[in-house]
Amino acid sequence: MSASIKRIGVLTSGGDAPGMNAAIRSVVRTCAFHGIECMGIYRGFEGMIEGDITEMGPRAVKNIVNKGGTILKSARSKEFMKPEGRLKAFQSLKKNGIDALVIIGGDGSFTGGMVFNKEFGFPVMGIPGTIDNDIFGTKYTLGYDTALNTVVEAIDKIRDTANSHNRLFFVEVMGRDAGHIALNAGIGAGAEEILIPEENLGLDRLLESLQKSKASGKSSSIVVVSEGDKIGKNVFELKDYVEENLPEYEVRVSVLGHIQRGGSPSCFDRVLASRLGVKAVESLLEGKTNFMVGIDCDVIQLTPLEQAVKGKSKIDEELVRVSDIMST
Amino acid sequence: MSASIKRIGVLTSGGDAPGMNAAIRSVVRTCAFHGIECMGIYRGFEGMIEGDITEMGPRAVKNIVNKGGTILKSARSKEFMKPEGRLKAFQSLKKNGIDALVIIGGDGSFTGGMVFNKEFGFPVMGIPGTIDNDIFGTKYTLGYDTALNTVVEAIDKIRDTANSHNRLFFVEVMGRDAGHIALNAGIGAGAEEILIPEENLGLDRLLESLQKSKASGKSSSIVVVSEGDKIGKNVFELKDYVEENLPEYEVRVSVLGHIQRGGSPSCFDRVLASRLGVKAVESLLEGKTNFMVGIDCDVIQLTPLEQAVKGKSKIDEELVRVSDIMST
Amino acid sequence: MSASIKRIGVLTSGGDAPGMNAAIRSVVRTCAFHGIECMGIYRGFEGMIEGDITEMGPRAVKNIVNKGGTILKSARSKEFMKPEGRLKAFQSLKKNGIDALVIIGGDGSFTGGMVFNKEFGFPVMGIPGTIDNDIFGTKYTLGYDTALNTVVEAIDKIRDTANSHNRLFFVEVMGRDAGHIALNAGIGAGAEEILIPEENLGLDRLLESLQKSKASGKSSSIVVVSEGDKIGKNVFELKDYVEENLPEYEVRVSVLGHIQRGGSPSCFDRVLASRLGVKAVESLLEGKTNFMVGIDCDVIQLTPLEQAVKGKSKIDEELVRVSDIMST
Amino acid sequence: MSASIKRIGVLTSGGDAPGMNAAIRSVVRTCAFHGIECMGIYRGFEGMIEGDITEMGPRAVKNIVNKGGTILKSARSKEFMKPEGRLKAFQSLKKNGIDALVIIGGDGSFTGGMVFNKEFGFPVMGIPGTIDNDIFGTKYTLGYDTALNTVVEAIDKIRDTANSHNRLFFVEVMGRDAGHIALNAGIGAGAEEILIPEENLGLDRLLESLQKSKASGKSSSIVVVSEGDKIGKNVFELKDYVEENLPEYEVRVSVLGHIQRGGSPSCFDRVLASRLGVKAVESLLEGKTNFMVGIDCDVIQLTPLEQAVKGKSKIDEELVRVSDIMST
Repeated sequence: MSASIKRIGVLTSGGDAPGMNAAIRSVVRTCAFHGIECMGIYRGFEGMIEGDITEMGPRAVKNIVNKGGTILKSARSKEFMKPEGRLKAFQSLKKNGIDALVIIGGDGSFTGGMVFNKEFGFPVMGIPGTIDNDIFGTKYTLGYDTALNTVVEAIDKIRDTANSHNRLFFVEVMGRDAGHIALNAGIGAGAEEILIPEENLGLDRLLESLQKSKASGKSSSIVVVSEGDKIGKNVFELKDYVEENLPEYEVRVSVLGHIQRGGSPSCFDRVLASRLGVKAVESLLEGKTNFMVGIDCDVIQLTPLEQAVKGKSKIDEELVRVSDIMST
Repeated sequence: MSASIKRIGVLTSGGDAPGMNAAIRSVVRTCAFHGIECMGIYRGFEGMIEGDITEMGPRAVKNIVNKGGTILKSARSKEFMKPEGRLKAFQSLKKNGIDALVIIGGDGSFTGGMVFNKEFGFPVMGIPGTIDNDIFGTKYTLGYDTALNTVVEAIDKIRDTANSHNRLFFVEVMGRDAGHIALNAGIGAGAEEILIPEENLGLDRLLESLQKSKASGKSSSIVVVSEGDKIGKNVFELKDYVEENLPEYEVRVSVLGHIQRGGSPSCFDRVLASRLGVKAVESLLEGKTNFMVGIDCDVIQLTPLEQAVKGKSKIDEELVRVSDIMST
Repeated sequence: MSASIKRIGVLTSGGDAPGMNAAIRSVVRTCAFHGIECMGIYRGFEGMIEGDITEMGPRAVKNIVNKGGTILKSARSKEFMKPEGRLKAFQSLKKNGIDALVIIGGDGSFTGGMVFNKEFGFPVMGIPGTIDNDIFGTKYTLGYDTALNTVVEAIDKIRDTANSHNRLFFVEVMGRDAGHIALNAGIGAGAEEILIPEENLGLDRLLESLQKSKASGKSSSIVVVSEGDKIGKNVFELKDYVEENLPEYEVRVSVLGHIQRGGSPSCFDRVLASRLGVKAVESLLEGKTNFMVGIDCDVIQLTPLEQAVKGKSKIDEELVRVSDIMST
Repeated sequence: MSASIKRIGVLTSGGDAPGMNAAIRSVVRTCAFHGIECMGIYRGFEGMIEGDITEMGPRAVKNIVNKGGTILKSARSKEFMKPEGRLKAFQSLKKNGIDALVIIGGDGSFTGGMVFNKEFGFPVMGIPGTIDNDIFGTKYTLGYDTALNTVVEAIDKIRDTANSHNRLFFVEVMGRDAGHIALNAGIGAGAEEILIPEENLGLDRLLESLQKSKASGKSSSIVVVSEGDKIGKNVFELKDYVEENLPEYEVRVSVLGHIQRGGSPSCFDRVLASRLGVKAVESLLEGKTNFMVGIDCDVIQLTPLEQAVKGKSKIDEELVRVSDIMST
């Protein structure tokens, strides 16, 4: 282990995601395990600039493994985008005797970390935390599995009312520009059709599919729409469009919204968070920097931050095919 | 028990609500218990007109006590609003040998039942099924308790993300013109402010309340808005209004939507449904008609349908006061 | 309002129950609302003796309305049963300037409070917190509704596996000497048979009932057994007994255990806790003492502590009858 | 695609697991997608012998993707272990025109399938369904992820009461002879110590660990014990042992039991089930036989049944190490 790292700072940045608390806990306890200190930085880079930093020992993170959100909070920081802001941030870290930084967040936060490292040579390690699962270098991001469960449970409830009234529901889910949540939760919820940005379904194909459903005896239908879908209409416009073209359908819309961001993390996310936290701290102690810890083939691995922020995680064509077959 | 009732028909009408299936099960099994037959009528009054009716014995309702939605489905019926439609409906019932009718639904469905009874002298009994809890004559309607739990669980998740980002969330909940869901779930979720139709809060009072919250150290806030609220702006307009007038607040909106209508019923709703079903069937067997079974002071009671459809269930002022004190 | 009460102490005692935290929050915020101070006493009467007491303002109870357990903890106190112990406790309260006491717990805790009041004339008010719902003077105790939901959800899961394998499950639930949980959750879960202390079912009747079930076509069965049931055998012995006498049944046992005590409180429990907390504080401010706040006919009311600890809450015979009819 | 397979039979066997219904649905719909027929065989090999077989089209499996248990039921079959039994089974399949068989179950069921194939040259394909996750050739078995979530949610509730009373809880979880559930759910629930069959912890080490916990300030503790653990004492004996040796600890036991087998499958299990079902049917159509479909590195793959039944899935040492670090 590197002798030079004696105190690691940890922050959460970008959109919050379930599992971030479990990751903070893992970083804190791994530091304690290795006999080094850990400091929590509040409100992401903004708090780093302001010096809103506090010591965190193992007892400070008790009982948070199962909590959604992040006890360190998160905030946007316009200051950090300017060199003066980053200089202040660096000075805060130095003033607190922090040697290295763990950033739990998405690619936006990693970009900030990369720039910071370039300017000050400060060791940084990234842990991918976002429900969108759209970061290159990791098969799963923290919060994604939990969000999938939140979405299928919500759609299960919507299905009850759709079935009772023989209705068609358009359900919009999060994902930014990626269709992972829509595709997986769509399969999990038995959706008729799934609209994701990566596949250009087209309105004609959608109408055709819905007509076929009615014909084959299906009385209720769910169409899951990713928020980044590029079909050209939002869910409300899709509702109108379908009601005009297929008048036998009674259509409703549900935008699941921010319930997808919160909630107690699933066991998978808690374990993943714990594993990633250990790897992040131990990589820093080994003298490594500018990596994102991630998981692939169930092995915890490192990906250079440049690749993590540039690349995109691809949609599995096999999954798209499975979703089509399941709609039979 | 009345010797003339030998076969009872049961239907679900209006918006679906969790607990309807448990009520259907209760009606079916109470009939069997008393040695009379039961027939399920699909899709409310529409199915009654079409004769979409089937025998239902105790095994037909196994394993539905915990299911949301309604296995008998529900549908609007324009036909039933016309005398010709209702005549066809009456003939369907006669053709199937049905002597009496149990209607599980809201006041709209009860009105239909009352008219039907007036025209044909056909015995009808109502079971209040709606998440809005706005029917006079019963302290709780089927589905209300479940919806309250669905709402607080959803707001708990939103709270996670509100806390992480120090944000204000406007959360719109169902209730038609009543504020029961908003008021109770608002208290349960620790909402800062609750906007219900029965109380005219006013925009100034809302801004004042939010300013006070910030000043007292609260970093995140939830404002629960009933869909029937008369403050003059919908949730999206409220968001804009607050962001203009209180720029230090970052505001988001969440419309919970149809998840509130579905889901596995709570224990309370399952037990209530079972008790109401027994009372409905046994009241018909006693020769009673034109009543709604309901609960008050934990006693199952009967309310004449005319009163049930006219009156409104009042908001508890004590609860409004409690919600104010809790926002301290 | 009484001018003499300026600082109220609050503690949780006895078995924990979901909703206790919401009650603590309500007491703290009602005190703040009335401009008086509140102090939290840790670990029940034991902490009171040790002076483990801290100030609690509105921000100290943020985000606990939806948490199970109790942030003030609970503990048995042998010391408090002795006059010397109670004297020390009284001195702790005096030393901290506490004028009145709110005790959140069960009848054991109320008894302690009554004795304390008799010895020192110290104003006490009780809030009923226990999942057993067996306290006279209140239709519902805090935690009961949540426990009912926990139990039916657990039995729903057991039902899945019972149905898959055509098995009979004996499920033991909590309740001390009362059958409320067993009876209500039994109805909610569609149990074949429910064994409660208040009704002496008898082994013959149980076998007969199970035989009838098989004959009528039921492939799986759940029998809910209250922990205080007096049938003479525990659940494991019942399993053996049934397997010997009805060899066609494959039997399993599940003791739900302590999951029944925890978990996020239901909306009902959160609202009840909030209402009871307000009433408790305001009753003390009105100069009242030695009462338990409770709910009946949806009205918050006061019951003298002597009655609350002596009386028992009766089983509703109507509910027993409903459970029989539902097993048809 | 093979021209000879025109009708595929599907059955569920062994212990039920969440996701089995989603897998049945996937097999049925994949058959329909490829224009071939599908028949459901009830109660595993026992129903196959009895000819309890029925046609299953796409509408027969609607709304089961989110249901726990198995609509085809499962049963042990002593008959099938004898050649005469298997001959009858073969004749049932022939009589129903079934060309190939999909077996959803555990290694016991696969062994039965292998023998059957050896005797009659009948094409069989296995889908791993068991919560224990102990089958070689697949990183995840159907039902495992759901069971992990069920366990951490149960332990979260137990944690509430453990924290309230400063108690130590021994929680026994399923897993047969494998420690996967205990290890992963133990990490997810923040357990102090995890006892699994694969690691010989020893009683001294357990006591030492518990003493260290108390010393470091932890007030409540959870020890997760796998049902197959070989420490020499069952959970009740462990409780007594700890109470004798560490009298400052108040200990309770919870055996989670059969709730672990049921419940609505997680999104992960629903998607995995759908993917495995497609692969199973399409592999049979390609003329393959005697394989188990599984997942590794997120790729659906085939493992020869002999390997699947012989090998064991190993515990990840990295996870064991992470669990130790998290207990700091």
